[in-house]
Amino acid sequence: MSASISDYFLIPSARGGDCRPSFARNIPTRWRYQKLRFPIAAMAPKEVLCVDSKVKNLLDSIKWDEKGLVVAIAQNVDTGAVLMQGFANREALEATFSSHKATFYSRSRSSLWTKGGTSSNYINVLDIFLDCDRDSVIYLGKPDGPTCHTGSETCYYTSVFDILEDSQKNKERLALTTLYSLETIISERKQEFETEQNRKPSWTRKLMHDNELLCSKIREEAEELARTLLDDEDGSRSASEMGDLLYHAMVLLKLKDVRMEDVLEVLRKRFSQSGIEEKNCR
Amino acid sequence: MSASISDYFLIPSARGGDCRPSFARNIPTRWRYQKLRFPIAAMAPKEVLCVDSKVKNLLDSIKWDEKGLVVAIAQNVDTGAVLMQGFANREALEATFSSHKATFYSRSRSSLWTKGGTSSNYINVLDIFLDCDRDSVIYLGKPDGPTCHTGSETCYYTSVFDILEDSQKNKERLALTTLYSLETIISERKQEFETEQNRKPSWTRKLMHDNELLCSKIREEAEELARTLLDDEDGSRSASEMGDLLYHAMVLLKLKDVRMEDVLEVLRKRFSQSGIEEKNCR
Repeated sequence: MSASISDYFLIPSARGGDCRPSFARNIPTRWRYQKLRFPIAAMAPKEVLCVDSKVKNLLDSIKWDEKGLVVAIAQNVDTGAVLMQGFANREALEATFSSHKATFYSRSRSSLWTKGGTSSNYINVLDIFLDCDRDSVIYLGKPDGPTCHTGSETCYYTSVFDILEDSQKNKERLALTTLYSLETIISERKQEFETEQNRKPSWTRKLMHDNELLCSKIREEAEELARTLLDDEDGSRSASEMGDLLYHAMVLLKLKDVRMEDVLEVLRKRFSQSGIEEKNCR
Repeated sequence: MSASISDYFLIPSARGGDCRPSFARNIPTRWRYQKLRFPIAAMAPKEVLCVDSKVKNLLDSIKWDEKGLVVAIAQNVDTGAVLMQGFANREALEATFSSHKATFYSRSRSSLWTKGGTSSNYINVLDIFLDCDRDSVIYLGKPDGPTCHTGSETCYYTSVFDILEDSQKNKERLALTTLYSLETIISERKQEFETEQNRKPSWTRKLMHDNELLCSKIREEAEELARTLLDDEDGSRSASEMGDLLYHAMVLLKLKDVRMEDVLEVLRKRFSQSGIEEKNCR
């Protein structure tokens, strides 16, 4: 019998090995686990029924529209990218609870569908959030690959402003938040660095040409950030120095072909396993 | 006179005033501006009509549902947080184009409404994205304050798993992506640091007790990140060291009461003004 989410959430922290069901191993917020009280295996049948009734009560509390649907937004837990938006009925939400694969209700085909069922690019759902009205949900999860059927990372790759500027071009550009826009700018500089050696280099390309310069800048920016604390400088100085440090560190990451998403995945796994603190306390 | 975004990207020779069409002001990603060819003030009336017809064509291309609506998701451009979800009809989308305030169609009141119209907590829209089916849009913007009518930062503060664990508690917890979950953990450590001095401190609280230790760790992690480039170590080492650097730097930011959102806002403004590159090339 495969474990359901309700199994995990009722299992206390066991020190020897990870006895959580697979879906629960990467959930980012550790404080939730710390609150767990008792293993479902040790529960009386009455208590198991109690869990089922909680799920039923929860589903009853959702404000399904006249077609029995809510909006379901799938979001990448590490980058924050909105991957896609569909609709969920009661069965789709129940299926997402139990399978941890983002599952929707197709209005055109009048049937359930699990994202990745055909492509294997599942969205592994780590948490589900309801909005204040309880008529909209976020599936917060980690995609196995590109979400869009076009092969794009997300379904949102068409900027209205790009179209208005030049409707013929229709160039794809993902809806990126600040950190990932910056990452894209750095990627573009790397391409220029690799293909147009003779052009007057931008600062980013200069850094990419000179590992010693880049590393000395990273050390320098780390020192400047530290000084804002030691010299009790204004918080706005800390924000500014952190921006400098982040930017220079991201240039290094690009040279190593490492994405910020990879870094955030490392942090998520560490923190859900009490990682950094554990490592540093040893 | 300080340079405006248009000075840099659009009209290098015309320094006075922003003569772009209103929909193009405040757009964060500079590569788009680099493609713009002419200021609208210099356009012949025929060309202005051409812009209007592009807007009309764009709106015609959207797949409005049987009620004339699409799903509209408002997302924080700096943090990636999904702020709220509503619906937009043709007029709501047009209003968002022209006012740059996220505007929706209220199905219950059968009228347009601009988020912030009552509370002044507008969502300042910097870009709008369509999905592959053209039946869903993202308003990518910067909120002036909390988005939810409850005063919560976003409308998504109810975790289904929290409810299943203990439906009585109903503790609010925002749908946070990895970076902001980490920030929340660090915030909790700061609260513990301030209120429970006698408890055995976690690593984070130890760092908060000792500025010299924290700053030496930041320098050390910056050096270790640099070494992964200089010593040609594996990319996974770079990701790991960057995770360490980010975490320690975020502990410092918390001590200075600076949020990652503040840092990202600094970076967004810099990059839209060619900031870091400009600064460093001087």
